[in-house]
Amino acid sequence: MVVAVEWLEEPRPMIRLIDQTRIPHDEAYLEITTVDALVDAIATLAVRGAPALGAVGALGVVVAMLQAKDEGWDDETLDAQVRRIRDARPTAVNLAWGADRVRPFVGQGVDAVLAEARRIVEEDGAANRELSRRGADWILAATGKERVRVVTHCNTGALATTAWGTAYGIIHELHRRGRLGLVYADETRPLLQGARLTSWELTQDGIDHVVEVDGAASSTILRGLVDVAIIGADRITANGDTANKVGSVALALACRRAGIPFVVAAPSSTVDLSTATGDQIVIEERDPSEVTAFSGSPSAPAGALGFNPAFDVTPHDLISAVVTERGVVEPATEPHPQLLARIAG
Amino acid sequence: MVVAVEWLEEPRPMIRLIDQTRIPHDEAYLEITTVDALVDAIATLAVRGAPALGAVGALGVVVAMLQAKDEGWDDETLDAQVRRIRDARPTAVNLAWGADRVRPFVGQGVDAVLAEARRIVEEDGAANRELSRRGADWILAATGKERVRVVTHCNTGALATTAWGTAYGIIHELHRRGRLGLVYADETRPLLQGARLTSWELTQDGIDHVVEVDGAASSTILRGLVDVAIIGADRITANGDTANKVGSVALALACRRAGIPFVVAAPSSTVDLSTATGDQIVIEERDPSEVTAFSGSPSAPAGALGFNPAFDVTPHDLISAVVTERGVVEPATEPHPQLLARIAG
Repeated sequence: MVVAVEWLEEPRPMIRLIDQTRIPHDEAYLEITTVDALVDAIATLAVRGAPALGAVGALGVVVAMLQAKDEGWDDETLDAQVRRIRDARPTAVNLAWGADRVRPFVGQGVDAVLAEARRIVEEDGAANRELSRRGADWILAATGKERVRVVTHCNTGALATTAWGTAYGIIHELHRRGRLGLVYADETRPLLQGARLTSWELTQDGIDHVVEVDGAASSTILRGLVDVAIIGADRITANGDTANKVGSVALALACRRAGIPFVVAAPSSTVDLSTATGDQIVIEERDPSEVTAFSGSPSAPAGALGFNPAFDVTPHDLISAVVTERGVVEPATEPHPQLLARIAG
Repeated sequence: MVVAVEWLEEPRPMIRLIDQTRIPHDEAYLEITTVDALVDAIATLAVRGAPALGAVGALGVVVAMLQAKDEGWDDETLDAQVRRIRDARPTAVNLAWGADRVRPFVGQGVDAVLAEARRIVEEDGAANRELSRRGADWILAATGKERVRVVTHCNTGALATTAWGTAYGIIHELHRRGRLGLVYADETRPLLQGARLTSWELTQDGIDHVVEVDGAASSTILRGLVDVAIIGADRITANGDTANKVGSVALALACRRAGIPFVVAAPSSTVDLSTATGDQIVIEERDPSEVTAFSGSPSAPAGALGFNPAFDVTPHDLISAVVTERGVVEPATEPHPQLLARIAG
């Protein structure tokens, strides 16, 4: 299985990232030894996916500390550089979560911070496997199907995490149990994480799937071609409202109409109890040229403006289940302002 | 204003089509003098849009008759060739409608058929202007807004018709009246008719707009950024169920949730009273490579399969209004198995 985020000591201490902008055409790696390089990798989505960003946020503090030592930064500069990493993408709560979790260890030196960052990586892999088991159990019980046909959006596999995946992890777990039918992978414009990354992972894992345009997902659901929609999350608020890749809420609306479950899967660190509802989530707007061009070649007339929100918010009442490694809650049927406290990290 | 479909006598009798696969980068024209060339232009979407296809279906019979004379076809061959034109795209009812409307004139010779085809072209332009007035009136009354912000999907402008446009025509009419706010144009994967064609027409008409990915439309609606969704139609059944470009039903579901109107606009010829409900509509599946590649360069891993339904069906209960040149019906609030008979062609 591919490793998206890794800490290497040799030939020099670095974060090694698979460059996700180049998949499926190339398997190339970035060797990150500076804050600038890390912020750039985050901003360009060379590394993306909420759990992977958690690991990167933590390991990024190590990179910043090593660079501080090399370049003689004072504490204020180091703090400012860590904040740059924390804030490199506004909607993803995990980035700040990862950085904040290791910050108490900064006084104990680089080794202590690195050890804590590595714990995050290990815990993420274990959490993904556990939430995948719980999610598969829930979906098999809810659908009552021998083989479950799935639609998913964006990429939530090993590339988006430190190992195994979240929503993708559930798909993988269903496959492992022999209980998976055909998977419909939304291509996920503008950056095509579904077509490029999810299809690549599904191919590597030998899972039968088709790629569809995002606009097809609603009718795939309404026509009865799938039994469940499973997505990841970039932030889940206290009541269960969920920010995820733009296009997710369309699946939720169609699932409600079709009467099939809509499932959100994420490690418990994605739950942000300090945010009460989705109304309070800042939606990141990315470069409009991602919309008005496709793989670098313009798709719209010169001068046309793009509108490029990176995320949307699915209201809790459309979410059948939120799964973390700590359990499952059902926001649509058990609404509560603090429902997610039961399965938060 | 651009002319998508035109009959020329000089230098030789032909259908002149603007090649829509090359917009916005080039303004190039196809000169169609054979059935093969016409079927190819229809299949590759060099010409598309339900009303434009109606004109092309009719003018195509003229092309077939002229070719029959040149090449000495018997009546059976001519019939078979006209059927090829009729059936070049399965979901679009207008193609067959246009061909069938001129067929009774075949016995009277080429000039009679051409005259009837030209009447179709004239009537389409007039119908579009009339339905645009009716649609704008209905929307201004329904929303009560000084300036109406609109989201639309695919292309329904002059390029999709013989003149003025349908859903686009309403937008244009609102603009003409000084009552239009910002327009959100879905890019409309896989073939990007929104990014390429609608944005091009909006730019030419000086209308403020942004292009968004299809997955963004639902949240644009849910966030209150627009007041109405307006789409065209490829086929409207007797009860109001509407087949349109894949992705349309996502807008309808979001409009219902947001409590804003979802409006379908089409000439009355798009109404197919012989089809009772949307369940009976055959959904055209196009080449999977349209999904797994973009402009010829692959977006998914080698060997990945694409699922490429060209249309989806929006159920009548999600449609606030269907507008034709004959009037407006409101399928969501006045459901009836033959509701569309009131405004059919």
